[in-house]
Amino acid sequence: MTLPPLPVIDALQASSARMADRHTPFIFDDWYVAAFSDEVSARLLARTLLGRGIVLFRSAEGKVVALEDRCPHRSMPLSVGALQDDHIVCAYHGMRFNSQGDCIHVPSQSNCPKSMGVRAYVTFERGPLVWIWMGAPESADLSLLPDQAWLTTEHWATSQGYMHLQASYVRLHENLLDLTHLSFLHAKSFGTPDYASAAYKTEIKPGHFVVMRDVLPTTLPPVWGESTGITGHGQAARIVRSAFLSPGCHEVSVSFYDCTLTEEERQIFRIRTAHLPTPETASSAHYFVVHGRDFAQTDTNMTQFMHQQLFVAFNEDVTGLAQQEAALARTPPNELYEFSVAADGPAVAMRRYLLTRARSKV
Amino acid sequence: MTLPPLPVIDALQASSARMADRHTPFIFDDWYVAAFSDEVSARLLARTLLGRGIVLFRSAEGKVVALEDRCPHRSMPLSVGALQDDHIVCAYHGMRFNSQGDCIHVPSQSNCPKSMGVRAYVTFERGPLVWIWMGAPESADLSLLPDQAWLTTEHWATSQGYMHLQASYVRLHENLLDLTHLSFLHAKSFGTPDYASAAYKTEIKPGHFVVMRDVLPTTLPPVWGESTGITGHGQAARIVRSAFLSPGCHEVSVSFYDCTLTEEERQIFRIRTAHLPTPETASSAHYFVVHGRDFAQTDTNMTQFMHQQLFVAFNEDVTGLAQQEAALARTPPNELYEFSVAADGPAVAMRRYLLTRARSKV
Amino acid sequence: MTLPPLPVIDALQASSARMADRHTPFIFDDWYVAAFSDEVSARLLARTLLGRGIVLFRSAEGKVVALEDRCPHRSMPLSVGALQDDHIVCAYHGMRFNSQGDCIHVPSQSNCPKSMGVRAYVTFERGPLVWIWMGAPESADLSLLPDQAWLTTEHWATSQGYMHLQASYVRLHENLLDLTHLSFLHAKSFGTPDYASAAYKTEIKPGHFVVMRDVLPTTLPPVWGESTGITGHGQAARIVRSAFLSPGCHEVSVSFYDCTLTEEERQIFRIRTAHLPTPETASSAHYFVVHGRDFAQTDTNMTQFMHQQLFVAFNEDVTGLAQQEAALARTPPNELYEFSVAADGPAVAMRRYLLTRARSKV
Repeated sequence: MTLPPLPVIDALQASSARMADRHTPFIFDDWYVAAFSDEVSARLLARTLLGRGIVLFRSAEGKVVALEDRCPHRSMPLSVGALQDDHIVCAYHGMRFNSQGDCIHVPSQSNCPKSMGVRAYVTFERGPLVWIWMGAPESADLSLLPDQAWLTTEHWATSQGYMHLQASYVRLHENLLDLTHLSFLHAKSFGTPDYASAAYKTEIKPGHFVVMRDVLPTTLPPVWGESTGITGHGQAARIVRSAFLSPGCHEVSVSFYDCTLTEEERQIFRIRTAHLPTPETASSAHYFVVHGRDFAQTDTNMTQFMHQQLFVAFNEDVTGLAQQEAALARTPPNELYEFSVAADGPAVAMRRYLLTRARSKV
Repeated sequence: MTLPPLPVIDALQASSARMADRHTPFIFDDWYVAAFSDEVSARLLARTLLGRGIVLFRSAEGKVVALEDRCPHRSMPLSVGALQDDHIVCAYHGMRFNSQGDCIHVPSQSNCPKSMGVRAYVTFERGPLVWIWMGAPESADLSLLPDQAWLTTEHWATSQGYMHLQASYVRLHENLLDLTHLSFLHAKSFGTPDYASAAYKTEIKPGHFVVMRDVLPTTLPPVWGESTGITGHGQAARIVRSAFLSPGCHEVSVSFYDCTLTEEERQIFRIRTAHLPTPETASSAHYFVVHGRDFAQTDTNMTQFMHQQLFVAFNEDVTGLAQQEAALARTPPNELYEFSVAADGPAVAMRRYLLTRARSKV
Repeated sequence: MTLPPLPVIDALQASSARMADRHTPFIFDDWYVAAFSDEVSARLLARTLLGRGIVLFRSAEGKVVALEDRCPHRSMPLSVGALQDDHIVCAYHGMRFNSQGDCIHVPSQSNCPKSMGVRAYVTFERGPLVWIWMGAPESADLSLLPDQAWLTTEHWATSQGYMHLQASYVRLHENLLDLTHLSFLHAKSFGTPDYASAAYKTEIKPGHFVVMRDVLPTTLPPVWGESTGITGHGQAARIVRSAFLSPGCHEVSVSFYDCTLTEEERQIFRIRTAHLPTPETASSAHYFVVHGRDFAQTDTNMTQFMHQQLFVAFNEDVTGLAQQEAALARTPPNELYEFSVAADGPAVAMRRYLLTRARSKV
């Protein structure tokens, strides 16, 4: 093999040009996780979201405020200023902004310039997450927020973690919609060899991309085997549904049970993982994760064990995706092409959808 | 507040486009501090000034030589060569240059190529400072050198310091012409709350931008209270004149006295600070400072005390301006605008002047 | 000297524009050293050559395989994958590639996409070196491989080393074709003052650039004096031939003898150095060196002594060329010009040749 024939390369490149990647503009009109709830307090928190500098804080009455992190006077980051009575006082010249972003005091004069202020973003806090609407406030649409009741019910025990991803959030979504990589990238953590070739079904509609994969009978890796007690060889069922819910959210739901028991006898153990990527720059993202289970909810040792095991695997993705993005970045554009295989169907559809969304600015 | 109305943003952006910032070309036809006198010796000193690599040394007879720091043969920095008898010998092939920048010896042949040489810059040493004229030597004009006799008289005790600024020199000039920031950026060092709202007068003429601010009665911060002995609450006068003298020089002059004494009784304590920014790159600068006082001239403990206290404050500027420049750099251009307030008048005029100078190349 | 007259600068810049430098495209249709033989094993080795990511390994039967280091599926570097039975298994989704670069297995499906594969490069191993042909395999031409029999005969004792060069490979070739720098850049290692002004002859033909320099009588630096025993002052002959053999190879051959002896009495000591630069990026290169001698071949202490002494000198080049490239990079293009002197003749011709090769893509 030297190179695929030129017509093949042309076709592959034309196909890639219809899919989102790190060159694709951000999709502003949607919800993204800005922070975990417990990160937001009466201290100013600076974070770059979708390429915009944002400052976050919690008001005296507990509301999360998110403002553009740049004083409109001389561009000092507001996040290095002071928080006083729910107002941010700029560190440079003391300009004062209320939680709506309006400039309400200029120390060197008696009034403020007309219409001086910074952009305020709509936020919505639910359970462990602070969501932010990155588009115009008037278009903020709560019906677009992913439905994840399990995050706020006591029936599910959860743990959370943050990773910084040196890759486009698009590549993380792609990763999550094609779990055949579990057998390879996660061979030493939560993948098993039979995963890649297990039968699967997909659901593909605009904005709705799902892969369902029933791996059974199979052997569970320690993180699931030890926690569910289904430790026998080839004795388990692992029923997976992996769903893109929005540009800022992907949810993986898994059920485990013991195949050697009858339907009446068996207990079904369910886990869920909310993968919450928020673009930072074109080629980096904040990667928030909340993981939950509906069994042994009060067993804090199990929570710790599962959290530690899972984040080993999630960090394998973080490492791998950074290697992938670096290889993409160093390849001369005219020599870059991507072959897709059948299992890529949902991810390809998702990447096309993201590109369409980005271009339509909706 | 989401965003100012579009016509307001358009007007603000149009206004900013008439002011210098880090995108503005350097102004070559002027004097800048290249180094403190005591930095220049018989050792080659490399420094980037206005984007040009320069090598400096002191000749046997004590004159400061400044040459382009690039061998015209194969571009080796001359500063890594050797200094022999006031000649620089290139480290690579031994080409020899005299202090006028002429190539006077090529070891591999008997003569030098015609007109081979490097650019020599005009320098002028006065007191603790080595000034360099960055334009063509024939246009070097000593009448443009800021008049600062206090730097060379024994009546003033001085100390000096250097800081590297990760911001455009324009932003430092802006900072120095708007001292209302003392109440905020320097709240913990030499600012007091009443500073920002004190009455002020300005002088604005091309190349001449001055702010005069009489803060009285006021309470002096420790650096001035302890050094002058005027330590009572609300007992002091702080009379400030802050003047842009040239693209490379800003001078702050302050008088302190005790308001509770009559004009006959009171002693007037005077301090001056020469702020000497020399652009390095578009977004960094060398920041030389000389500070002086006309009292207790022989008290070296006081010199040390004041120097240490003052450089805490100057470093607050260095930190703040770097944060400002970084915020400017990461803001998408179409989302960038700056509101100005009344106190910005002199700085706005100065930034317009710098832009005009840069464009006219005069 | 301020600046050369404008017509001179124009002429110098026009001349430089006809010579290769870091802006010149790579020359793909030629042989370059990819690695030392002993670096290539059954472990995957990643290396960037001529701007391309390459993965190297040695097959079970001992052949060196060089493939494009990017999985054509989703661009994971193949070098972070696994080597199994002379196949690379991608770390991400387990795609398997044989040593011809063909994709031979996709775990998630029964067949591979048609014509899926990565580019395979032609390699040729000889003695201590693995050469790679960076152009199309069908044009690989072994007749272009430099003839260096001494590298594979027992009559020559050799040692080898690698340096990373932060400069264009063009500047290293230029350095090697103008040894007048030995008197300066290597004044403290293997240069002597008389080197720069010694008489020389040149051979200049397309692709063939040679400088011959007879330095005699001279005094040898320790690396040669101690190893040959010719330690007397002004007693030695140092007969040098320095030849550009290809874009990836320059060979220096030196003979030493004692001038105080007759032709019959004297022993001739010969050393050779293969300087093997392989471009990495536009402004960096892999710098492989093999050094050999035809005397005291079994004296390992002498091998160690010479190697240590020589690499001090080679590292002086690495340091100097990085300083040169940095000075070139920071000089505004309109202020950049290079004077050439007579001794630059072969290097100038070589740089013109490289530019012509790069433009003709041959």
